[in-house]
Amino acid sequence: MTDRTDLRLPVNAERLWSDLMALAEITEPGRPYTRRAFSPLFAEGRRFLAERFQAAGLTTRVDAAGNLIGRLQGTDPLARTIALGSHSDTVPGGGRFDGIAGVVAAVEVARALHDRGIPLRHSVEVIDCLAEEPTDFGLSCIGSRGLCGAIDAGMLGMTDPAGERLDAALQRVGGDPGRLDEAVRTDLCAFLELHIEQGPVLEASDIQIGVVTSIAGIRRLEIVFQGEPAHAGTAPMHLRRDAALPAAATVVEVRRLADALAAEALGSFVATVGIIQAEPGGSNVVPGRARIVIDARSSHASLIEMFTRQIDEFSLASAAAFRVKRASFTTLSDAAPTLFADPLQHALSEAARDLGLSQTRIASGAGHDAGFLARVCPSAMVFVPCRRGMSHTPDEWADSDAIAAGAAVLYAAALQLDKAVPPKDVIM
Amino acid sequence: MTDRTDLRLPVNAERLWSDLMALAEITEPGRPYTRRAFSPLFAEGRRFLAERFQAAGLTTRVDAAGNLIGRLQGTDPLARTIALGSHSDTVPGGGRFDGIAGVVAAVEVARALHDRGIPLRHSVEVIDCLAEEPTDFGLSCIGSRGLCGAIDAGMLGMTDPAGERLDAALQRVGGDPGRLDEAVRTDLCAFLELHIEQGPVLEASDIQIGVVTSIAGIRRLEIVFQGEPAHAGTAPMHLRRDAALPAAATVVEVRRLADALAAEALGSFVATVGIIQAEPGGSNVVPGRARIVIDARSSHASLIEMFTRQIDEFSLASAAAFRVKRASFTTLSDAAPTLFADPLQHALSEAARDLGLSQTRIASGAGHDAGFLARVCPSAMVFVPCRRGMSHTPDEWADSDAIAAGAAVLYAAALQLDKAVPPKDVIM
Repeated sequence: MTDRTDLRLPVNAERLWSDLMALAEITEPGRPYTRRAFSPLFAEGRRFLAERFQAAGLTTRVDAAGNLIGRLQGTDPLARTIALGSHSDTVPGGGRFDGIAGVVAAVEVARALHDRGIPLRHSVEVIDCLAEEPTDFGLSCIGSRGLCGAIDAGMLGMTDPAGERLDAALQRVGGDPGRLDEAVRTDLCAFLELHIEQGPVLEASDIQIGVVTSIAGIRRLEIVFQGEPAHAGTAPMHLRRDAALPAAATVVEVRRLADALAAEALGSFVATVGIIQAEPGGSNVVPGRARIVIDARSSHASLIEMFTRQIDEFSLASAAAFRVKRASFTTLSDAAPTLFADPLQHALSEAARDLGLSQTRIASGAGHDAGFLARVCPSAMVFVPCRRGMSHTPDEWADSDAIAAGAAVLYAAALQLDKAVPPKDVIM
Repeated sequence: MTDRTDLRLPVNAERLWSDLMALAEITEPGRPYTRRAFSPLFAEGRRFLAERFQAAGLTTRVDAAGNLIGRLQGTDPLARTIALGSHSDTVPGGGRFDGIAGVVAAVEVARALHDRGIPLRHSVEVIDCLAEEPTDFGLSCIGSRGLCGAIDAGMLGMTDPAGERLDAALQRVGGDPGRLDEAVRTDLCAFLELHIEQGPVLEASDIQIGVVTSIAGIRRLEIVFQGEPAHAGTAPMHLRRDAALPAAATVVEVRRLADALAAEALGSFVATVGIIQAEPGGSNVVPGRARIVIDARSSHASLIEMFTRQIDEFSLASAAAFRVKRASFTTLSDAAPTLFADPLQHALSEAARDLGLSQTRIASGAGHDAGFLARVCPSAMVFVPCRRGMSHTPDEWADSDAIAAGAAVLYAAALQLDKAVPPKDVIM
């Protein structure tokens, strides 16, 4: 299959795949595929990447926010920079593609541009954003936050379980927490990120390229119900205040409502109850306290708002029906949706069409570095299909062909942007 | 209040209360009120009790099953023995009444009989049954099992987390695991146990005496649902296999059905889901596996049967509706209901009436030593009200008056049995 792709794609699928597998193998041996940000293995992965950056003719540095950046200088000193990238850290027990597929594809694009022999007007940068996954400090997307000036003093003071502060850890990986201002980019005209879909949609529809329209907003709601613990044998049904009941009823209602909103929004709404706790948790004790955490996502802020209002009302009514107190209804976190730049979506779409690849527009339910980059420059993403939507597991898989096709789209789009974007023009 | 009671009751409420509080104070200082079976504090409590037994004129011994037994010899060598008692061990962080109220009340009855000066035809025994509460060996009601021959070799080989075997622990508290046959009682004509209700019914109705009709059967059911974990942002609603949903729906259905059966059975049915687990338990992961444990209790075995059948059907259908597999439906344990002897219930009821105490018949949702004693002799129980039904907590409380009233009922019933029961007659 690799041969067939190589014949028509402007990137070298074999070279890309070989780098990808080599980097994936830099993992904790007993817990594949794990390369946690700030760990010695992460540093080893970065040494591998820096070497590849340099071999591709990129001038390589680590910026103040700990991002590994390789630069191919453009010919026009007034032209802004086209950036490509993703991240090289993983979750614990993660997969071989989440993150590094986008970094290695960007390296392959740089190599293909370099191989082509015709210099671009714009500079092109490959960025390995530091620590996209949730870290032990309690913060994610640390590098891409740095690129848009979204790391504050409070974040720098966060500590991991071993007591290390984030600013110290940043310094350890080559960053400079005292000069974070210097990491903020005002010179970018575009950021493009390739990523595996981490969902089943592209594979199920047998489509090669997903042009990402947006990153869903995410709101996390915590509901705590307070009843009264009682003996499971001696408390009559009608005198109970079983906190697990409104919790369970709300779990079922979240699903019912999410199904309805998803149907209404053509799929662009999901909601999940991933945490359900009933305490004290003994088989012979009526639960006195229950807690659920709801994760609601949509590209449409208004749907999240409507969902929140209805769950608020339902959980209150359900608690009352079961003689339980709804002790709290808390927004744990609330990230607004990110809409990607239309001109960039258009460029990616044109590129896919010119390459003869099947494509669709798709919303991302997961967060990505491009979500932060979109604060400082027009940004967009390419999704490639992955097996059964599996991600954050050693079983995560994407075919070499699929990743090469995505890299080819990045390459063609970068070339098109180099022609189309006048110096200093900002596509928003 | 104690004075008022003393005037009309044949037992000394003050003496009873003083013993009760003294024994309750033998507790782990940092975790009141804890006196775990087989612990040094348990042995200290037993030394206190043995001294009280002897002071009451009881011949005191520890039987092969580790029960502390005090005996007041009757005048008729052919008459069988009337036994009274409960247990002196506690759960961790338990209360001051669960168990010892019944032992100390029995001692007070023996003292009152002794004080009366007129010897009984029947011998009377006070039994402190060993280890009624769940032990670290994984077994409860060890002493009362021994009295009815229900300890087998497998149980003797059970070990606690420290690796001690139950037979060794039995020996340590004065038992003789090699001669358990000798602990089995064929000489009893009645066993009467006083206990706090551990439920809210008597207090809510302002009734002094509960004549216990039965100990509910208890069936524990475990249901495991197997779906597929997925990313909470990228898995579309219609493709999910969220294992938490049929689990939550079943929790709600258990309550609906239990309410209906309780109404049908005049309250003699309860069901509880005390354990609800959704895995992996991250806010951003669709649960791939869920487990619930249901505790169903009734004096009517047929209701438990009907409940089991309906939950079996419901959980299967609910799993299918949510595209989830019901991986298992398991009976973890199944204890048949115990019906107490009618003539003994009658004797207790007459005694309460003669003493001018308000009374009701009541089923016990919790297990008790009398449940095992009922296998070898006619048995029955007296419940006394406790505050807000609270038990297995340091807040557990019963008034001195309430316990003295219960002890007086035991006393009067024992006297009546002594007159009524012909030697060798067995009330079944």
